[in-house]
Amino acid sequence: MLDKNLKCPGFDSRSIGVFDSGFGGLTIMKSLIEKLPSESIIYFGDSANAPYGDRTSSEIIKYATDAADFLAQKNIKILIIACNTACACASKIIKQKLSIPVFEIITPSFQTVLKESKNYNIGVIATRATIRSQIYKKLIEQHNPKARVLSLSCPLFVPLLEEGHFDNKLALNLAEHYLKPLKKKKIDTLLLACTHYPLMKGIIQKVMGDDVKVIDPSLACALNLLSFLEKNGISSLNAKPKYEFYTSGDTEKFKNIAEVFLEKKIDQVLKK
Amino acid sequence: MLDKNLKCPGFDSRSIGVFDSGFGGLTIMKSLIEKLPSESIIYFGDSANAPYGDRTSSEIIKYATDAADFLAQKNIKILIIACNTACACASKIIKQKLSIPVFEIITPSFQTVLKESKNYNIGVIATRATIRSQIYKKLIEQHNPKARVLSLSCPLFVPLLEEGHFDNKLALNLAEHYLKPLKKKKIDTLLLACTHYPLMKGIIQKVMGDDVKVIDPSLACALNLLSFLEKNGISSLNAKPKYEFYTSGDTEKFKNIAEVFLEKKIDQVLKK
Repeated sequence: MLDKNLKCPGFDSRSIGVFDSGFGGLTIMKSLIEKLPSESIIYFGDSANAPYGDRTSSEIIKYATDAADFLAQKNIKILIIACNTACACASKIIKQKLSIPVFEIITPSFQTVLKESKNYNIGVIATRATIRSQIYKKLIEQHNPKARVLSLSCPLFVPLLEEGHFDNKLALNLAEHYLKPLKKKKIDTLLLACTHYPLMKGIIQKVMGDDVKVIDPSLACALNLLSFLEKNGISSLNAKPKYEFYTSGDTEKFKNIAEVFLEKKIDQVLKK
Repeated sequence: MLDKNLKCPGFDSRSIGVFDSGFGGLTIMKSLIEKLPSESIIYFGDSANAPYGDRTSSEIIKYATDAADFLAQKNIKILIIACNTACACASKIIKQKLSIPVFEIITPSFQTVLKESKNYNIGVIATRATIRSQIYKKLIEQHNPKARVLSLSCPLFVPLLEEGHFDNKLALNLAEHYLKPLKKKKIDTLLLACTHYPLMKGIIQKVMGDDVKVIDPSLACALNLLSFLEKNGISSLNAKPKYEFYTSGDTEKFKNIAEVFLEKKIDQVLKK
């Protein structure tokens, strides 16, 4: 893991690369900023090709490997694929291709759910593409045959959140509409299996009630990464970490939405 | 206007080409089917590049001229650009390029509004990109200096309608949320300046109240075209007109949404 940028042995000041098809991965970035405050991060949102869920597998593999190559050329020490669709379709190929460690978000997500559930009646909400792939249902039920997964897609959550409605009457109405079928079942754990959804965790918790544990996988991802960096002696010591943003889409739109998602001002967003 | 396909002099059995960046133009197609029931129609939805509102002008010109060329090669007699963004950016170029008549939807829309309004306090609702371009405000105020246009974007209407929520509690909540500022003004006419919005005309009318005339421009477009076809002797006599569908995006998704928009079954959607 040592390289020419390493100023202090056992540490590594290079950035962490995070990529998503659009904005959703910013919730992962937000948790990284919170839990790993010395790490610099380069984020790439492939908005020109979003949403990946509407693309064919070969298109997704092409976009995702292009995105991974783009970040790898920026001398990052680790890549996080913060997009469920890209993880499902392209994480193996990207891991084979890159010489740096590659993290995906699906494994820590389903592992956290299995750790937290008591009755193994588990709810999973995500985009239509992720639910259709059944990836979470299969993984959870494979790893614990007692588990019973109830999956549900909530297609309007993403546009709602990208319009900044996190915690108002509209968000509440929509959450009540979508979550009604899940409320009737005796789930004790609900996985937010779309990177956008943690933004409305408060509303979802309110609708589901206190008996249901709502799982935001971005925290598990950040803690996973923290432990990996420490174990491998490649944490950063930056007192002032740098955050860089790239998009293949409209930079102004990206900047506006990213500031809302991260709850912080951004200097600039560069066009890939 | 005579050509080799013409079986009966004074008539023309070739199809009408309709293109939009995605699904919105299907409301125009629906009005064409209703008002011009003998005309065959070929629809192309450029969903892979939608929404055009997020693209640069040169990208929109490229996509729109590609789409026009694609339909022109299918031996159509007329092209309708059923996309506000493409009309604003590329209709002049397409008119110069093609040898067939090209119709756009902006002119009949603002003309209908000016004909219907009594007090010239006019509301215009559309996507963020159309409102930002101020095209309707400028055209209406240029053609009648007494007119005062209040413009408002309703960004969540498009995803809501594409999810099939035309006339339920969710649609009503969202319409009440967006239209609140317009209700306070004394507008007597409200233009639906996004091709999706006619799908929720009922809800919008309910929220605005009976004193406001809600204008669905798809009807004006269809009647305009009907009169043009008759005047030029190029109407069709097909007893069983043919409807063909192409998309650059996911054909299955297109088929599902198009059947909801058109309220009719579709045999197949072909990939461009």
